[in-house]
Amino acid sequence: MNGTLKLIDNRKSVRAYADKEIPRDFKDRIIEAAMRAPTAGNMMLYSMIEIDDQEMKDKLAVSCDNQPFIAKAPLLLLFVADYQRWDDYFTISGVPELMESRGEPMRHPEEGDMMLACNDALISAQTSVIAAESLGIGSCYIGDIMENYEFHRELFDLPDYAFPVTLLCFGYPNDNYQEKKPASRFPKKYIHYKNKYKRLSPEEFNEMYQPMQERYFSGGKYFEGASNIGQHFYLRKHASSFMKEMNRSVRAAMKAWRKNES
Amino acid sequence: MNGTLKLIDNRKSVRAYADKEIPRDFKDRIIEAAMRAPTAGNMMLYSMIEIDDQEMKDKLAVSCDNQPFIAKAPLLLLFVADYQRWDDYFTISGVPELMESRGEPMRHPEEGDMMLACNDALISAQTSVIAAESLGIGSCYIGDIMENYEFHRELFDLPDYAFPVTLLCFGYPNDNYQEKKPASRFPKKYIHYKNKYKRLSPEEFNEMYQPMQERYFSGGKYFEGASNIGQHFYLRKHASSFMKEMNRSVRAAMKAWRKNES
Repeated sequence: MNGTLKLIDNRKSVRAYADKEIPRDFKDRIIEAAMRAPTAGNMMLYSMIEIDDQEMKDKLAVSCDNQPFIAKAPLLLLFVADYQRWDDYFTISGVPELMESRGEPMRHPEEGDMMLACNDALISAQTSVIAAESLGIGSCYIGDIMENYEFHRELFDLPDYAFPVTLLCFGYPNDNYQEKKPASRFPKKYIHYKNKYKRLSPEEFNEMYQPMQERYFSGGKYFEGASNIGQHFYLRKHASSFMKEMNRSVRAAMKAWRKNES
Repeated sequence: MNGTLKLIDNRKSVRAYADKEIPRDFKDRIIEAAMRAPTAGNMMLYSMIEIDDQEMKDKLAVSCDNQPFIAKAPLLLLFVADYQRWDDYFTISGVPELMESRGEPMRHPEEGDMMLACNDALISAQTSVIAAESLGIGSCYIGDIMENYEFHRELFDLPDYAFPVTLLCFGYPNDNYQEKKPASRFPKKYIHYKNKYKRLSPEEFNEMYQPMQERYFSGGKYFEGASNIGQHFYLRKHASSFMKEMNRSVRAAMKAWRKNES
């Protein structure tokens, strides 16, 4: 196993940081690595916003499902699916006039463009994670940034065609990191298929969840009201208030992108 | 610069392959590395479908905007944003009965869940790209897999809550790879901001596109009917038939996810 595969294999999310700043030079290497990530048609349909304003960090720690460690992360990078830059440039480049002369309206971004821009942003985000890892710097994804769309939009001055798709916290791990075991994953055969998608049978599900059952739930400690893993994840995650909010929030963001829907 | 940063920095997309198979062991290392990628709440909201059926590869080369190299790629991995596995498991775990006893309907995935699952799928996809790179294996993203939703859905037997968000082609690069220069990127200051999003002025746009102008358009060769870079990208990409199709297709996919919208 080469060094890159090893660090991918050993990565764990870091939510508790050593009391150590990340040198500016290392921050820049992470950002520059992220900018080398492949992007659709080399259009770079994303932006990165580095948040170093403590007041904003404190606000994010609340708005992203109340996770205080966010405010303590030495580096916060917001990845924005960004079609606004191109939409503005099209306008500046005389596209509206060109299209008018052709008797067609100028096309503005819609849901598919948003999804493509999310591709770019996330591919870049994971590149930054692996780059950081190679520098001994840990990270944690905050998907909760997709909640509270209106609040985050105002906080970052985001225009219509800029969707904050993920937030990354970076920092040197504290002393407990080495002892932490990497999270277990489902057995490969239930994630990786050949040629066709596969619906699983109850027996297959039982086998699939067996390692998770043993590692995390051997004491039978499920979320209140649940009596098995499926019910636990349903109540704890899927039907939680934060997932309901994420769905409302993403729908609100999409509305801004589909305002010109044909 | 460490080895991992170097390979991120030097990566170029590979669309022309050496006549050399990828050993099964290396394919598995790529897949297993992808499975180590961080995932939201460790729910692994994605699946990978390896396509080794030549007839299917031939079909994809057509359905993904007519790119014949897709059919020749030694390894094709489709990344599916997948909430179906959990939705099925919730049902098998008695969630419908549990919720009925509480007088509430069971919640099924919606747009926000789809977006979170896309996060997982894309984070995993980029991990596979970097893992492959470390093994000397090149890759190319095919965003066009988001087009022709109905066709791809049938081709892969995809259920409602499984969205094919990206397709990756892998293979050893052919001899021309070394001579190829990595694609240029926009200057960092126009991608990376501090604390607030930034709308750009015409002067800033001019500076931003200068390197692209010099490298790709110094001969003034724009797409038919365009007279500058903005119009070129608008006509060639943004208003192309494949981007219109991608938007239609993504909307169709989202409909399957929001059928239970509250």
